[in-house]
Amino acid sequence: MDRPIDVLNNAKGKRILVRLKNNSQISGVLMALDLHLNMWLDDAQETKDGETTKLGTVLIRGDTIVMASPAEQ
Amino acid sequence: MDRPIDVLNNAKGKRILVRLKNNSQISGVLMALDLHLNMWLDDAQETKDGETTKLGTVLIRGDTIVMASPAEQ
Amino acid sequence: MDRPIDVLNNAKGKRILVRLKNNSQISGVLMALDLHLNMWLDDAQETKDGETTKLGTVLIRGDTIVMASPAEQ
Amino acid sequence: MDRPIDVLNNAKGKRILVRLKNNSQISGVLMALDLHLNMWLDDAQETKDGETTKLGTVLIRGDTIVMASPAEQ
Amino acid sequence: MDRPIDVLNNAKGKRILVRLKNNSQISGVLMALDLHLNMWLDDAQETKDGETTKLGTVLIRGDTIVMASPAEQ
Amino acid sequence: MDRPIDVLNNAKGKRILVRLKNNSQISGVLMALDLHLNMWLDDAQETKDGETTKLGTVLIRGDTIVMASPAEQ
Amino acid sequence: MDRPIDVLNNAKGKRILVRLKNNSQISGVLMALDLHLNMWLDDAQETKDGETTKLGTVLIRGDTIVMASPAEQ
Repeated sequence: MDRPIDVLNNAKGKRILVRLKNNSQISGVLMALDLHLNMWLDDAQETKDGETTKLGTVLIRGDTIVMASPAEQ
Repeated sequence: MDRPIDVLNNAKGKRILVRLKNNSQISGVLMALDLHLNMWLDDAQETKDGETTKLGTVLIRGDTIVMASPAEQ
Repeated sequence: MDRPIDVLNNAKGKRILVRLKNNSQISGVLMALDLHLNMWLDDAQETKDGETTKLGTVLIRGDTIVMASPAEQ
Repeated sequence: MDRPIDVLNNAKGKRILVRLKNNSQISGVLMALDLHLNMWLDDAQETKDGETTKLGTVLIRGDTIVMASPAEQ
Repeated sequence: MDRPIDVLNNAKGKRILVRLKNNSQISGVLMALDLHLNMWLDDAQETKDGETTKLGTVLIRGDTIVMASPAEQ
Repeated sequence: MDRPIDVLNNAKGKRILVRLKNNSQISGVLMALDLHLNMWLDDAQETKDGETTKLGTVLIRGDTIVMASPAEQ
Repeated sequence: MDRPIDVLNNAKGKRILVRLKNNSQISGVLMALDLHLNMWLDDAQETKDGETTKLGTVLIRGDTIVMASPAEQ
């Protein structure tokens, strides 16, 4: 059986959805990932309180993440 | 006697219920688990404040978890 | 003299009471325990704000725990 | 010169007062102690917001503690 | 495939945008970076609640950071 | 050049002032100190919201401390 | 290229400005620094909510710091 992080390793190069502890939702293409769940996303945007902001290329710190999902299932 | 995490190791491939620190409740099929309680769930959904959201396949970060139970007891 | 955790090691197979950081109180039979105070409880129930919920078999993450006591003293 | 924890090591078998991060105050007889300040107390009681609750034998998780004092000085 | 932090390593000497856990936004030229995401920024300014403050040269502690992006994409 | 903690090592046996994360201020004679900033104080008292409480001999957990100063400068 | 902390190592013996997580601002002469960003400041003062308090010689715990800057740039 796989490790939990494999669900994201299998999504490299594809769009994922990330929920942060501050309740914002990030959508972006997963370019790189490490064991702390630090993530490099491309073409990212953030949705919070119904408002969407373009982030472009972004590094998200793993310890701010609640959960993450592949967008195309 | 077993380790605490064995209660979840024995539930692999089965549905579990997970309570998060932000008070949301996740239900999903446990696919993978590590010692930090990072979890890969399939067919997951989240219930918070009486509202249910489909999550599908999701990685949950272990440090956001309060408790977890096998759903079929 | 014993280690602090021995007060729970001596309670294996018996009912304990666990107070969580979110102020809920869990009662359950202690099945397994590790040094992080992760716990596997059977026949557990949670009381919060005067309301009681059945949890059954549950894994509680150690870092959410404030204190724990043997129920039968 | 001693280590800070020696102030409690010298209090083993005697009553101590423990202040928790949630502002409750615990009084109990110190039975065991480790370097994380996890503590096993006997004959413990908790005072919070002017109300006192009997705890009996209890394990307190060290990371919830602000300070601790020998009760008999 | 690269590590997440490479998205910032590639931005050394260039302007980046940093979001902090307290919701302020820092803009500055990235001079140095470590694995904890501690950052040395030059010519930095902070925007919070619509107000902008000049910071000049600043060290930002990594554990206060939510995300960071290259400003010129 | 010295280490930061030397400012307190030089104050052993003398009165120091300690500010806690919960905004209370402790004054006491520093008897012992470790690298986590755990401190053993004698003849301590706490001031919070204008009210002063006698603590006597107390162990303060280092992770609750914001800053500390020698009282006699 | 330097490490982030070098921006402060280069400021030893000079005045720096430190922002804490509780939003207070400390100004003081940097006497010593370690990798956790624990700092020994001399001739320090704190500004919070428009009010300034003399601190004199002070040890600041690194984990309470958001950012720090040389005052003379």
